[in-house]
Amino acid sequence: MPISETWLLPDGVADVLPEQAQVIETLRRDALDFLASRGYQLVYTPFIEYIESLSSLSESNQDLDLATFKVIDQLSGRLLGVRADMTPQVARIDAHVHQVNGIARYCYAGTVLHTKPQGFNTTRAPLQLGAELFGSDSIDADVEMVDVMLNLLQTAGLADGIHLDLGHVGLFRSLVKHAGLSKLTERQLSDLYQRKALPELAEFTSHLKFGQDFYNLGRYASDLDTLQVNLSAEILNDVEFKQAFDALKTTQSEIQARWPNLHIGIDVVELRSYHYHTGLMYAVYAPNRAAPLAQGGRYDGIGEHFGRARPATGFSCDLYALSAGQFKTAKTVVAPKGTDDALQNAIAQLRAEGASVIQLLGNDDLSSTPFATHKMVNQSGNWIVEEI
Amino acid sequence: MPISETWLLPDGVADVLPEQAQVIETLRRDALDFLASRGYQLVYTPFIEYIESLSSLSESNQDLDLATFKVIDQLSGRLLGVRADMTPQVARIDAHVHQVNGIARYCYAGTVLHTKPQGFNTTRAPLQLGAELFGSDSIDADVEMVDVMLNLLQTAGLADGIHLDLGHVGLFRSLVKHAGLSKLTERQLSDLYQRKALPELAEFTSHLKFGQDFYNLGRYASDLDTLQVNLSAEILNDVEFKQAFDALKTTQSEIQARWPNLHIGIDVVELRSYHYHTGLMYAVYAPNRAAPLAQGGRYDGIGEHFGRARPATGFSCDLYALSAGQFKTAKTVVAPKGTDDALQNAIAQLRAEGASVIQLLGNDDLSSTPFATHKMVNQSGNWIVEEI
Repeated sequence: MPISETWLLPDGVADVLPEQAQVIETLRRDALDFLASRGYQLVYTPFIEYIESLSSLSESNQDLDLATFKVIDQLSGRLLGVRADMTPQVARIDAHVHQVNGIARYCYAGTVLHTKPQGFNTTRAPLQLGAELFGSDSIDADVEMVDVMLNLLQTAGLADGIHLDLGHVGLFRSLVKHAGLSKLTERQLSDLYQRKALPELAEFTSHLKFGQDFYNLGRYASDLDTLQVNLSAEILNDVEFKQAFDALKTTQSEIQARWPNLHIGIDVVELRSYHYHTGLMYAVYAPNRAAPLAQGGRYDGIGEHFGRARPATGFSCDLYALSAGQFKTAKTVVAPKGTDDALQNAIAQLRAEGASVIQLLGNDDLSSTPFATHKMVNQSGNWIVEEI
Repeated sequence: MPISETWLLPDGVADVLPEQAQVIETLRRDALDFLASRGYQLVYTPFIEYIESLSSLSESNQDLDLATFKVIDQLSGRLLGVRADMTPQVARIDAHVHQVNGIARYCYAGTVLHTKPQGFNTTRAPLQLGAELFGSDSIDADVEMVDVMLNLLQTAGLADGIHLDLGHVGLFRSLVKHAGLSKLTERQLSDLYQRKALPELAEFTSHLKFGQDFYNLGRYASDLDTLQVNLSAEILNDVEFKQAFDALKTTQSEIQARWPNLHIGIDVVELRSYHYHTGLMYAVYAPNRAAPLAQGGRYDGIGEHFGRARPATGFSCDLYALSAGQFKTAKTVVAPKGTDDALQNAIAQLRAEGASVIQLLGNDDLSSTPFATHKMVNQSGNWIVEEI
């Protein structure tokens, strides 16, 4: 194998060198510490699991199944999957392993692998960090989760100019149910909404029962007040529709009260992960970035697969994406050879103060540490640090 | 799929719940911070790579190849391996990606996967943490590495009663070369040494050229002075043997000088990873544990596979093993509902001080947070924290 082929990495996979690793490591710690301060308990989930355990979401989300690398377990002969998303794993823990009566809050950070790059994100190995709240179906839980997500981005120094998108699958879903649409029609409509194809939507809905409502749902998707004016009384009075509509409106106003300067957009037909989510959906966007910084939503009942269906809401983000373009060069001090106490004590003190100190080895001199930024020099018997 | 099968994890794979995750997270941070203070720069290596890149060590170490999960890359059609050891990856970075002229020091921490449990360790997903030093073949580099390993264990609170084993593949290897043994005889001898089978060794070596020296190498493997007395002058004067012998002796005395109370054992025929290592080998054992806490050694030339053969020495450990049996329950404070400033300020202050504070949601009461240890109560207008 020639060298040029040996050292190349697969597409969507990268080394993280010290200048960037330091930034990500700091971000990871700050994020987990922030989540801990909000009561989210850290869990580490396994990198491989039986495929059946990982597929609790993929039953309704074939994308996840396709994104999962599979290997044969040499111990059991069974099929294993490499985690492509940590959410189903945390749901398994909540349902089975760490059964909390009442509300459970968990956070996690770890690499997930995708067989192919997902969406705009070209990495196949995101460093997924997220938080999940199980056991509450209240709007308060949704509001807390969005608030935690926003605070996390603030902790990461990414809150400037961000934009929050809120949606709720309950509006479309209850309308579909009320109108008694077929699965096929539901999918076609969902596709038209995703493509924001209003003329096609007008054409398609003109023959549908409650077609005007379906059209107006797309037409006024970003403005709840105008939408309300343009929907039929029958739909507005549908119990499930009303519940979803009110929940979205309440969430919007509660988030706006906590974050008065935040730009909040509404999109009631933003149906990404439609089959996966069961209620509120949210995503945060930064200026000039196509992919969301963080996203999440409600996915009640996920634990059913593991024998305990619980209300659940959560979000996740990719630490690599959050830290993209940031680099930090560490202050590295070079110390001369020598084992005398004065030098060793000076080195120990610098290290205790958080400095990175390398002591020269054998016959080495400063040229052996070209990346060093400082050196220790003896000035009238005292060891001091100078820039190189 | 019945629930009981769904939630079971594969053998050698485990969830890490909050009580233990907290301990490991702290250990991980302390260890990486300590390594940074010694000048070891953090890198993150990819979870998957082309199998050819991961096999730089496995060419001489078939165990590693067998331990590596393989998957097909859907983008390139090529074979990928899931990392089973991070050392070859860091060597690739040193050789090709982050070419430092002079000495490079790196550290890393991450999950590696093994197709089957390795040795006494029953996990298939160790959390490997390690440090590597490239570009110096001096004894000083070996001494630094052992010193760093011992200090790391001290940082982890594991230095009590530990035992350091030192070996050096150069003694046996130079003797084999001097005697001109066949590969088969070399393997048979290596096997006898590993099994500490002295009677068999006596029988086997009785017909060998330099047989008495091979026997005495095993017989006096743990005592350099006695070994020296019992080896033939011809072997003692072999340049490569003498170099290895002196290096081991110097290392032992330098480590002992830095760690006067440390129990250091010598074993010149401890040949684990014999084909992989090229010089000094070291392992630290704790009382009542079969597997070493940490181990490493010199593996010069590893980067050759990537076009830059450099001297290298390093060690690694498994953070799960280091933290085994340790649990910590977090102090979790429950705050009542309410958005008034006094309460919100009190919560914010507690969080800023590092406490984990959960504010009750919707219609919840204390029973919704059974794992909480403290609660906030209002006493004469002041919010104070009480044990539950």
